[in-house]
Amino acid sequence: MHVFYTPDITSNQYTLNEEESRHCSKVLRLTIGDIIQLIDGKGGLYEAEISAISKKNVQLKITNKQSEFGKRNHYLHIAIAPTKNIDRLEWFLEKATEIGIDEITPIICDRSERKIVKEERLEKVITSAVKQSLTAYHPKLNPTISFAELMKQNSNGEKFIAHCIEGEKPFINQLTKSHQSYLILIGPEGDFSPTEVEIALQNGYKAVTLGNTRLRTETAALAACFEVNYINR
Amino acid sequence: MHVFYTPDITSNQYTLNEEESRHCSKVLRLTIGDIIQLIDGKGGLYEAEISAISKKNVQLKITNKQSEFGKRNHYLHIAIAPTKNIDRLEWFLEKATEIGIDEITPIICDRSERKIVKEERLEKVITSAVKQSLTAYHPKLNPTISFAELMKQNSNGEKFIAHCIEGEKPFINQLTKSHQSYLILIGPEGDFSPTEVEIALQNGYKAVTLGNTRLRTETAALAACFEVNYINR
Repeated sequence: MHVFYTPDITSNQYTLNEEESRHCSKVLRLTIGDIIQLIDGKGGLYEAEISAISKKNVQLKITNKQSEFGKRNHYLHIAIAPTKNIDRLEWFLEKATEIGIDEITPIICDRSERKIVKEERLEKVITSAVKQSLTAYHPKLNPTISFAELMKQNSNGEKFIAHCIEGEKPFINQLTKSHQSYLILIGPEGDFSPTEVEIALQNGYKAVTLGNTRLRTETAALAACFEVNYINR
Repeated sequence: MHVFYTPDITSNQYTLNEEESRHCSKVLRLTIGDIIQLIDGKGGLYEAEISAISKKNVQLKITNKQSEFGKRNHYLHIAIAPTKNIDRLEWFLEKATEIGIDEITPIICDRSERKIVKEERLEKVITSAVKQSLTAYHPKLNPTISFAELMKQNSNGEKFIAHCIEGEKPFINQLTKSHQSYLILIGPEGDFSPTEVEIALQNGYKAVTLGNTRLRTETAALAACFEVNYINR
């Protein structure tokens, strides 16, 4: 069934915006009586029937609603240094949305080569993954901030930093349990600087490893995402 | 340190081929006395010193060798239906190589939209991931075969099929333990056909789920890869 993202849905009537209406009528060639799915990004999964349709205006009657669809028993926030090649970050956002993530914050670190991120573009990537994977909760993408700014924010829950500096580091699952709120920091190509690691530890972050192999930034971030979802099965 | 893939290394002397020599001398601008790393793809990780260099000919003296570098305590073989958009399969190969995989077989299924795969191209993707992630074991890419052909092969070890047909399915970790040989089947966009699932079950494959969310083919394959590596930590 075709899925539309409708964050502003409030009643049992809804009108698709012009772009979505055109997509619905011209591209998908749907017609009156056809049933589509709507996702509000806050856990709501709807079934809706097309009650009226024109090129630029598609009106819907909600026929069924599920709340808290696919609600998770934990909260995962990953703060990741944007990759030099932005495709790799976009790829992570798509995959993390499929696997399960609640919040993402791009962070600029000492060794970040990329210091600018187009959030609108990343938002689009997340939304299309939300529709494709039928994820009723839309992950929250925060504005890009510096590592220092992130350290100033006080977040409750478990905090981890995945860095590659030599030394014994436990896995995330050895330091935490299920049903928690987790914040995990993933550094840029070239890793966090020793100073950043030191500051994170002083701020209550625990150093963790994601495995013995050398992982790219986006792979490390997805590995962390997989691990937290695995712990919370 | 710069890494080169040298599957044909046999002694403590080695000469890079013309392409690698040019890369070494012209692109990296290395010179006599410089140290590089070599990977033979069979677990050997070498340190080598440049003993002679010209545009097309770089001679190396092996100064150190580690065998069975990063040897795994398990064997993972994933048979995956090539994705319609081949980038997605290539992406999986890169990520699986980083995380840890031993063997990959592209399989053509009833609902496969893509029936042809350029193995040479995929091989290149794997090799560059091997170098980037310093994986001393080069994953084996098998020729593309049909689902039926795969069923004819008798493989020892644990066999799983990850399909999306309704019904209670356990996770891989609920059906197996660590230190095994695992073969996992991942279907195309549109899933395996009910007939294929039936045949797999008759051939000793166990049906498994990779989670409650709707995963793309390449995401499902990587989820399986993560899970097996997690079980074998």
